[in-house]
Amino acid sequence: MAKVKVGINGYGTIGKRVATAVSKQDDMEVMGITKTRPTFEAQIALDKGLDVYVPDESVQAFKDAGMKIAGTIKDLYKKIDIIVDCTPGNVGEKYKAEYEAAGIKGIFQGGEDHALTGISFNSTANYSESWGAQFSRVVSCNTTGLLRTLSPIDKKFKINNAYVTIIRRAADPGDSKNGPINALEPSVKLPTHHGIDVQSIMPWLNINTMAVKASTTLMHVHTIVAELSRETTSEEILEVMRKSPRVRFVKSSEGLKTTAEIMELARDLDRDRSDMYEIAVWEDSVKVVGNMLYYYQGIHQESDVIPENVDCIRSMCKLEEDVAKSVEKTNVAMGILNN
Amino acid sequence: MAKVKVGINGYGTIGKRVATAVSKQDDMEVMGITKTRPTFEAQIALDKGLDVYVPDESVQAFKDAGMKIAGTIKDLYKKIDIIVDCTPGNVGEKYKAEYEAAGIKGIFQGGEDHALTGISFNSTANYSESWGAQFSRVVSCNTTGLLRTLSPIDKKFKINNAYVTIIRRAADPGDSKNGPINALEPSVKLPTHHGIDVQSIMPWLNINTMAVKASTTLMHVHTIVAELSRETTSEEILEVMRKSPRVRFVKSSEGLKTTAEIMELARDLDRDRSDMYEIAVWEDSVKVVGNMLYYYQGIHQESDVIPENVDCIRSMCKLEEDVAKSVEKTNVAMGILNN
Repeated sequence: MAKVKVGINGYGTIGKRVATAVSKQDDMEVMGITKTRPTFEAQIALDKGLDVYVPDESVQAFKDAGMKIAGTIKDLYKKIDIIVDCTPGNVGEKYKAEYEAAGIKGIFQGGEDHALTGISFNSTANYSESWGAQFSRVVSCNTTGLLRTLSPIDKKFKINNAYVTIIRRAADPGDSKNGPINALEPSVKLPTHHGIDVQSIMPWLNINTMAVKASTTLMHVHTIVAELSRETTSEEILEVMRKSPRVRFVKSSEGLKTTAEIMELARDLDRDRSDMYEIAVWEDSVKVVGNMLYYYQGIHQESDVIPENVDCIRSMCKLEEDVAKSVEKTNVAMGILNN
Repeated sequence: MAKVKVGINGYGTIGKRVATAVSKQDDMEVMGITKTRPTFEAQIALDKGLDVYVPDESVQAFKDAGMKIAGTIKDLYKKIDIIVDCTPGNVGEKYKAEYEAAGIKGIFQGGEDHALTGISFNSTANYSESWGAQFSRVVSCNTTGLLRTLSPIDKKFKINNAYVTIIRRAADPGDSKNGPINALEPSVKLPTHHGIDVQSIMPWLNINTMAVKASTTLMHVHTIVAELSRETTSEEILEVMRKSPRVRFVKSSEGLKTTAEIMELARDLDRDRSDMYEIAVWEDSVKVVGNMLYYYQGIHQESDVIPENVDCIRSMCKLEEDVAKSVEKTNVAMGILNN
């Protein structure tokens, strides 16, 4: 079968990772990426042998910088079956019209609203809903993290209510512009959008999220309280989580006390960009009292959605009907192991 | 009436603030403080005219440093009615025996267990329970913050369940030893001690706390979810909070977005050490949906317990039976205004 031809619009934090992940699969290939400015990241893309496409208005800037382009974005559209839109949030509307006109499929990211596509995607929770779709949306890193653990728990125990606090990293590690460097900033408008975004995929779930931005760049941390419809035990919960894809147990008692040690572990795993694609659940925090469940999890904001983008391509392009097979295929190619 | 004679054992973060606060009241006076090492803080105490007492084994060190002492700790015991114990946590047992032998009253801090005294203290929640007691314990900064807001809400609405996440500052501002400088560290042993400590004063309250240490030094932030026994409105909750002592509304929409701006406000208030004694509740975060209440609050870890120590002296030494009058007296002397 011919490989699915993939374009990637935007080569920032998410785009460059999607490019790497797609290039590792045997049923899809990267036909090119787009970049609006001739930054160091554009140069790295060229060095890696990627074809770089630019908007009309950027042609001269790339010429001036001595960076060789393969054409304009519209040229890229002609070569591909599907585009993964990794542009900054809220320009999706404009691009969606372009993709429609070009007759290609498009995957958006969590920065766009669910309404843009009407379908949102998470491998664990609803792989089949994007089957054959022209447009879908991979939800944000925090939403992905919540779905990875809450969806399997809900399937087995039915969650009556979930209360989540998201302690957000203030900026990506490579971002020197943003702060705070010494403060905590609550998102005062309640509820925050995170729970609402979970409901774009699990509309029946009563979930309320609060969020506080903290002075750190490594990972987000969630504190999760879930009221289940029946009493259970920590062991039963751990058993469900152990079988859930892309959930990795970490143990404080084994030295993985903070997000810093988790990212150090990721570097030791020899992964691309030292990423931690899995949701890191502190195994020794999982606590059940009656029908109340409590646990902490860490979210690597730059990378947890990357394998979902690969699976989403597979669902939309009808490459693999069985979610378990797609997840396994993606995982093997990216070096993600089960617990 | 003669002033109550107060000694302060330990002159660190809490002790030095208690000394300042007590010295501002007209019904009590500081007879001396203790210090184990001749640090800059000991010198400042001397410069401020405080009598400094030291353990026997420290006499020589102070002599060598050229710092004039007023005697040993046992000399201090003879001059006072009550001692505020601000020594590091878990040496209370030893000191309690000394205070008992000396026939003086003693107030311990939240670093000690409730079991040490059998009575814990918070002005809002249980002022009268320490009336005339020989020993009591002012609960920790986080517990004080939770009691200041939850106790009045519980009195009016009865709280069925409370779920709290505490995002802890990693170190005091003057502490250059501790970290993390870029990480989040969950307290994996659940539930954390904070909720249990609230129950030392409100034993009927179903409260569960989780905690994550963050890379910041300014304040702790709480995310609070409370299930009330009946439906209400944000306005009713705000009305209760507005009347609660030492609760200060801050508004994100007025530029008080983070703990950094709150501490900047404290500096503008010309207070001793730029402290924020009140619990800072983000007014524009208070949200009620049915019988569920959500809000954020900030806790100035070095100072919120200081006015409680003054009130605790008044309750234990039977200086004022009416809690409202004691709170008002303390507040006026310390420059704390109502909302």
